[in-house]
Amino acid sequence: MRTEISTLGEFGLIDHLTKNIILTQPTTKKGVGDDAAVIDNSDKRTLVTTDLLLEGIHFDLTYVPLKHLGYKSAVVNFSDIYAMNGKPQQITVSLGISQRFSVEDLETFYAGVLLACEIYGVDLVGGDTTSSLTGFSISITCVGTADEEKIVYRNGAKDTDLIFVSGDLGAAYMGLQLLEREKAVFGGKADFQPDFSGKEYILERQLKPEARKDIVQFLSGQEIVPTAMIDISDGLSSDLLHICKQSNTGCRIFEERLPIDYQTAVMAETFHMNVTTVALNGGEDYELLFTVPLSLHEKVSALPGVHLVGHITKPEEGCYLVTRDGQEMELKAQGWNPIGK
Amino acid sequence: MRTEISTLGEFGLIDHLTKNIILTQPTTKKGVGDDAAVIDNSDKRTLVTTDLLLEGIHFDLTYVPLKHLGYKSAVVNFSDIYAMNGKPQQITVSLGISQRFSVEDLETFYAGVLLACEIYGVDLVGGDTTSSLTGFSISITCVGTADEEKIVYRNGAKDTDLIFVSGDLGAAYMGLQLLEREKAVFGGKADFQPDFSGKEYILERQLKPEARKDIVQFLSGQEIVPTAMIDISDGLSSDLLHICKQSNTGCRIFEERLPIDYQTAVMAETFHMNVTTVALNGGEDYELLFTVPLSLHEKVSALPGVHLVGHITKPEEGCYLVTRDGQEMELKAQGWNPIGK
Repeated sequence: MRTEISTLGEFGLIDHLTKNIILTQPTTKKGVGDDAAVIDNSDKRTLVTTDLLLEGIHFDLTYVPLKHLGYKSAVVNFSDIYAMNGKPQQITVSLGISQRFSVEDLETFYAGVLLACEIYGVDLVGGDTTSSLTGFSISITCVGTADEEKIVYRNGAKDTDLIFVSGDLGAAYMGLQLLEREKAVFGGKADFQPDFSGKEYILERQLKPEARKDIVQFLSGQEIVPTAMIDISDGLSSDLLHICKQSNTGCRIFEERLPIDYQTAVMAETFHMNVTTVALNGGEDYELLFTVPLSLHEKVSALPGVHLVGHITKPEEGCYLVTRDGQEMELKAQGWNPIGK
Repeated sequence: MRTEISTLGEFGLIDHLTKNIILTQPTTKKGVGDDAAVIDNSDKRTLVTTDLLLEGIHFDLTYVPLKHLGYKSAVVNFSDIYAMNGKPQQITVSLGISQRFSVEDLETFYAGVLLACEIYGVDLVGGDTTSSLTGFSISITCVGTADEEKIVYRNGAKDTDLIFVSGDLGAAYMGLQLLEREKAVFGGKADFQPDFSGKEYILERQLKPEARKDIVQFLSGQEIVPTAMIDISDGLSSDLLHICKQSNTGCRIFEERLPIDYQTAVMAETFHMNVTTVALNGGEDYELLFTVPLSLHEKVSALPGVHLVGHITKPEEGCYLVTRDGQEMELKAQGWNPIGK
């Protein structure tokens, strides 16, 4: 018997492979199924998260500078810790490298990782370095900490809770589209100079994203603990469905409320893409998506850089986007799928 | 300027890349440079270690069953935590998989990981799963715990300390040689039946190694805290040199005292290999190598499964093997090098 992985998809595969895991350690407070694992070694909880990034799947060294790649590889892990309402503290970095890389190349990559560590106040504490027969492989694990009562899981959203997102959506995806187009135009011409003027924002969102440490600090400063939170890596639609599934709720989000930057909209127009689809499914935004009780409406709306996009409903009402003309479209996990055909 | 990675070697490269790392987190008690990082979140310390295993570099799926591969991938990480005198508690498992793998294949791999978790009392708490354009990639991170005063680093060995190893050496390497030979003989013949009778021990040491939890428990039961400890993954020679370098000492080990199994010796003979070289440099033994003060000679010698192999000296006396005929041969880090030409 042979079941193709593509019939399950990434999340189906993970569900399938992890459904028989039994947790036995008293220190394990949360295992598979959220942005990070939660470990209790004291009054504080230890958080652990990990990412595996492979050349040709997650990045293309034709247009991704190694320093940016190092920076991004670290930041996407920090983002998972913030998405638990925690503080990243340590990372380990493992690399599989082929002979095509020089010491200077790896120095450049490391410089990016260490810059991210410096900016976010994280220590690089270990890793593994080995050769690779093929592409560049990056595995980063991040350990963080949080007060037990402040950890925010994906499963705490309740009917009537409000749904907020930080920043804006779809920019990183449009940055990727732009880079892919310029790569195709570039071909092998050595004197080719891509024209990126006026597109700096979407490129930076793709190449050098930031984790929303500031939002976590704002929430903490206002003593707000969201009922559920996740970072948007696969796209708003896919990640909001994670919250609804784990919280056993439905949701309504409103097209007119989706925060979209001007450059994102212009580039979507250029590429003849529907900008709402881009905002819903683009992915790699690394913004925070969180829910709070209705009573916190004013308090949270007053925070800088967050946007009310909808509300949680009873599960039987399903998960829908309400379009500008009042139609309801079911949300689907069409996000970027690293285990596709 | 371009420096080839091969001019530095694995350890040189790691030293080079990590030498500018500055630790800033008060919770980070130990970063790069030992078997695991040490993190202080309370009275107990949290330990973190990670390994990246790539197809064609670390394993050959022609003869490594996926269940064994899963088991071994987990166990080699547990071994790093034991080598700190700690207790592994959680692991994360990240996989990069190509289309050649089916769901059943991954179930089999996971079954091996979970069997190891069950036997060693560890929880699998997270990971990342993605597609790979080429081979199978495995990244495992293990989190463990230890009492602060019982953690054993590599840098605590002192002049006149005794050097012990658990188990026996070189068997996993001879198991690998046997598998490589049978693979070459096998060619593509479907009805080929390799003859492994009488060679079960060396095959098991290669395919399904164990971490020495028992030794750590024996030491604890006798209230013995070694002055330095490491697990033998690259070979006795290479790993003892790590202890001597970090402790700023020399050492003498004695050829006649190296623990070698009968099957290892027979197979070395068959392959016309020097069995001492195999024991020193074979690697993948996952035995514990540790040092204790001279005063503990009798107490440690009485533990089951440990062998006195030599003693620590002043640094100016260098690191040498004393052969059966009394000659001194300098120890070299000839261990298995995953970043070779």
